[in-house]
Amino acid sequence: MNQKLSSKKAVYARFFPLLGDLRKSDKVEFSQDLLAGTITAILLIPQALAYSLLAGLPPEVGLYASVLPPIIYAFTGTSRALAVGPVAVAAVMVAAALAPYAGGDPDKYLTGALILSALTGFIMLCMGFLRLGWLTHFISHPVLTGFTTGAAIFIVGTQLAALTGISVPRGVSFAVLLQTLIDNIHTYNLAAGLFGSAAVVLLILARQPLVVLLTTLGMKQQSALILGRTAPLFVVIFAILLSWLIDAQVRFDIAVVGLVPQGLPMPSVDFLKAEGWTELLPAAGMIAVIAYVESISVAKVLAFRRRQKIDPDQEFRALGLANVAAACAGTMPVAGGFSRSMVNFDAGARTQLAAIVTASLVGLAAFLFTGLLENLPKAVLSAIIVVAVWQLIDIKGLKHTWSYDKGDGIAQGATLVGVLAFGIEHGLMLGVGLALVLFLYRTSRPHIAVVGRIGGTEHYRNIHRHKVETWPHLLLVRIDENIYFANTPRVETELHNLVLDSDITDVVLIFSGVAYVDTSGLEMLETIEQELSSSGVRLHLAEVKGPVLDRLCGTQLYDRLGEERVYLSTDKAVEQLICPSS
Amino acid sequence: MNQKLSSKKAVYARFFPLLGDLRKSDKVEFSQDLLAGTITAILLIPQALAYSLLAGLPPEVGLYASVLPPIIYAFTGTSRALAVGPVAVAAVMVAAALAPYAGGDPDKYLTGALILSALTGFIMLCMGFLRLGWLTHFISHPVLTGFTTGAAIFIVGTQLAALTGISVPRGVSFAVLLQTLIDNIHTYNLAAGLFGSAAVVLLILARQPLVVLLTTLGMKQQSALILGRTAPLFVVIFAILLSWLIDAQVRFDIAVVGLVPQGLPMPSVDFLKAEGWTELLPAAGMIAVIAYVESISVAKVLAFRRRQKIDPDQEFRALGLANVAAACAGTMPVAGGFSRSMVNFDAGARTQLAAIVTASLVGLAAFLFTGLLENLPKAVLSAIIVVAVWQLIDIKGLKHTWSYDKGDGIAQGATLVGVLAFGIEHGLMLGVGLALVLFLYRTSRPHIAVVGRIGGTEHYRNIHRHKVETWPHLLLVRIDENIYFANTPRVETELHNLVLDSDITDVVLIFSGVAYVDTSGLEMLETIEQELSSSGVRLHLAEVKGPVLDRLCGTQLYDRLGEERVYLSTDKAVEQLICPSS
Repeated sequence: MNQKLSSKKAVYARFFPLLGDLRKSDKVEFSQDLLAGTITAILLIPQALAYSLLAGLPPEVGLYASVLPPIIYAFTGTSRALAVGPVAVAAVMVAAALAPYAGGDPDKYLTGALILSALTGFIMLCMGFLRLGWLTHFISHPVLTGFTTGAAIFIVGTQLAALTGISVPRGVSFAVLLQTLIDNIHTYNLAAGLFGSAAVVLLILARQPLVVLLTTLGMKQQSALILGRTAPLFVVIFAILLSWLIDAQVRFDIAVVGLVPQGLPMPSVDFLKAEGWTELLPAAGMIAVIAYVESISVAKVLAFRRRQKIDPDQEFRALGLANVAAACAGTMPVAGGFSRSMVNFDAGARTQLAAIVTASLVGLAAFLFTGLLENLPKAVLSAIIVVAVWQLIDIKGLKHTWSYDKGDGIAQGATLVGVLAFGIEHGLMLGVGLALVLFLYRTSRPHIAVVGRIGGTEHYRNIHRHKVETWPHLLLVRIDENIYFANTPRVETELHNLVLDSDITDVVLIFSGVAYVDTSGLEMLETIEQELSSSGVRLHLAEVKGPVLDRLCGTQLYDRLGEERVYLSTDKAVEQLICPSS
Repeated sequence: MNQKLSSKKAVYARFFPLLGDLRKSDKVEFSQDLLAGTITAILLIPQALAYSLLAGLPPEVGLYASVLPPIIYAFTGTSRALAVGPVAVAAVMVAAALAPYAGGDPDKYLTGALILSALTGFIMLCMGFLRLGWLTHFISHPVLTGFTTGAAIFIVGTQLAALTGISVPRGVSFAVLLQTLIDNIHTYNLAAGLFGSAAVVLLILARQPLVVLLTTLGMKQQSALILGRTAPLFVVIFAILLSWLIDAQVRFDIAVVGLVPQGLPMPSVDFLKAEGWTELLPAAGMIAVIAYVESISVAKVLAFRRRQKIDPDQEFRALGLANVAAACAGTMPVAGGFSRSMVNFDAGARTQLAAIVTASLVGLAAFLFTGLLENLPKAVLSAIIVVAVWQLIDIKGLKHTWSYDKGDGIAQGATLVGVLAFGIEHGLMLGVGLALVLFLYRTSRPHIAVVGRIGGTEHYRNIHRHKVETWPHLLLVRIDENIYFANTPRVETELHNLVLDSDITDVVLIFSGVAYVDTSGLEMLETIEQELSSSGVRLHLAEVKGPVLDRLCGTQLYDRLGEERVYLSTDKAVEQLICPSS
């Protein structure tokens, strides 16, 4: 009975980590979560409005994305401080997917967003239950950085239009965007530009300079940092007041947010009846992968700082539920935002209770304050987006990657350029594909070293790099790569060239770097062995790893070599083979 | 001046290997080449007629493919015995590409074949001059075997129709083909069936049984084998006579070859003006790759038997020229055929002079004997195809591959099934893609072994496989794979789990199996090092290979480790780290 209870508890703990956390929490943690949740809400409200505009959706949709989805994640996610909600990169991917789908029809556009959320959620749930999280490992870090930088530059480009009041079409490539901006430069709106640039300046000042000022005035750095992060809300309030005072919309023709419906919509599954699921599936797949990768990276960083654990598969399930909830709540796909989660963590969030506090405050705001947003210039929201995504632009990282590894540098650069030249999705596919091709290319040209013994040891190293002992009749060759189809012809050629030397009577292949020999590799080794044998040269193997040896047993090669020509260590092979001459 | 002359000679020798070979040959070799060339011609003539029917082209087109292209290859190729001409797999790929392109128009169909030859040639020339031969290494041996088997089964299926006189549409999938055959089973032509099956039986008897009979009668096995290979010509002659005697076309409604134009057409480049180059490009790419891979495999096998060398890039150029010549000669793409080259080799071909003899004889036949072909039943040509490609079907190989490596077995089986289910080209792409995915999957789950010292040696092996010495505060971990983006999260998790043990104060990562650490891997190692360091555990590296160490120098990781924590050998690391306790 007790055992049954505890196994039930284990299931609860696995699928609802928050309940376990809360049982262990004390009052101090509750108050910390309360404070962190409030600060995150102050940051989130303007971001939510801004990111829904970035996705091409009405501003209130961003608020909806910040209430139900994070509450669902709070109960199911394994990260304590991840702040789930609308994020910039997913928002711009939504815009790219929906522009061709909706073709200018705002109702269809909104329905499409719900379908995207639902599909994203379903894909994530599948990945979580099928334990396919490892598939996301194929997005290398350089590709992800290149992708984020490219997406951020693209977002800044789209917001330049809103900042200056120039209208550009949605869902176009970066080049077309820039071209339209330049062509329509004369249609700029001075007042919108002033609102936008003032907001940008204020938001930048609220970062480093404000923190420096506040700490000089004696405030703790941590508190100063957090206070700085709440600046967007104050900028918004100030902008609303000013816009209302000068009647900016009527007198200066500024684009404002306009009427925002009060409250939250009833959850609904009407979107299930809509059409376009197949059409939006590829885009949803990309959003699911990117949303997951972005979330899990932040979650890992934060968990590491407090020595906590993240369950990657449960994260997929939790984010999947959050996205299905987003569809039901009538909003766009959600993910764990990087900067927002950092603020949440720095403000002291200990459990996902903080996220529930945040969501409740945003929900409250949706009921009480939407009326105030009417006069908010859209340029101010664009300013918030620009300042937020500007930090994602990482050009230094590209230089750094290039200096360590040219291949990774190329993949990172190509992803960045690809996102701008061919669009968000194609850029990502290009980068992932290129990274894989470069890896395959590398493994198809393995490093092969002739080695000799380092005097007085049993250790063998490259004859070109170390001072080593060698023997004229004995060739020791170390193959530094798995032997598989893409490199067998090359390994074969290199071995041929090495053996051309006619004094050699024994060749030892050192397999310390070989974790795997596939069928093509085995056939090549069998051919080489027969060839050498017919020229009176004996082939030997040394340092064959357990898993490789297990496979080789029973092959024709192993039958021909026999146990006596497969040595545990290179040194044993050498001792055996130089014995007659010593 | 002399140097200039000899460098000119080197260029000649590189681009026209035959001239060099001839200078070195003696009269014995000439007479051997003459004999081999004649025997190959006897084999080739019926094959040429059959393969052009397989490609859906008039029979004379196969003869054209056997004259100019092999002569061009003879002067430029590096293989001495490769017999270039029409081949079954390329022929069926041509049919698959041209059926949708020509839409039933025979003139357009023929023009399409010339465009395919020209494109195949241009692609091969590009690959040769850009030295891209290594790209073909990505077709693993199991995938190639699966592909050939699938294509052979498909060909047998198409020829079943011709053998029985049932008409089926061209360019359909294997399933549709079988379905049509079954649906139209009542339309079979008994006489055609008799001709076809008699030919099949005779051709099979001419193989093993005839050879056994002849050797029992005292003939040398080699001569008996070669005589057996000339059987198709005698079967053809016998069938023509019989068909003419009984007036098979009129009395039994048998499909016959019909009027074949006499002689060879003048070379022409009119095809250059035709349309459809872009449409046929993908198919030509596949044909180029398969034709090259098939040719180079035979060439390598034959060269190896006589200790000669093949230049893979020059082979690309020579086959490219031969295919451009095929387009000019008004015929389909060519390649080196496996069985034909074997016959040529076994009959004693020493240089490509044999190929020139073969081509001349085929050319002569085109001028003298085309009139005789009129009454030849098509069912007999189908019989020749079926018996020729039957040997390509390799099901035993599939079992063999499966027993050595499940992944390779899956790739081989999937290619086979893919060719039948989705067509020749898609099957090949599926196989190549799957083999790469399986390789990536494997490298994304690296083998990680905890090792200990084998008593009395400096050699370290897996603690689970060998009796080894270990130390409680010291963890020795060998990573058996390159550390790259697809496996960093897994390596990180495994290392985390290994280090959870709290007694450990020093971790040594043994890099004997690591030939490459990419940017993602480096970042992971840096994180692990900081993490361990903050828990009071020191990280060390041992047996770092030269190329890896070169890269690590200058990174933050290397700065933190310093030279003193990077050891040449595991043993030095252990000696250093157990010193305090010893």
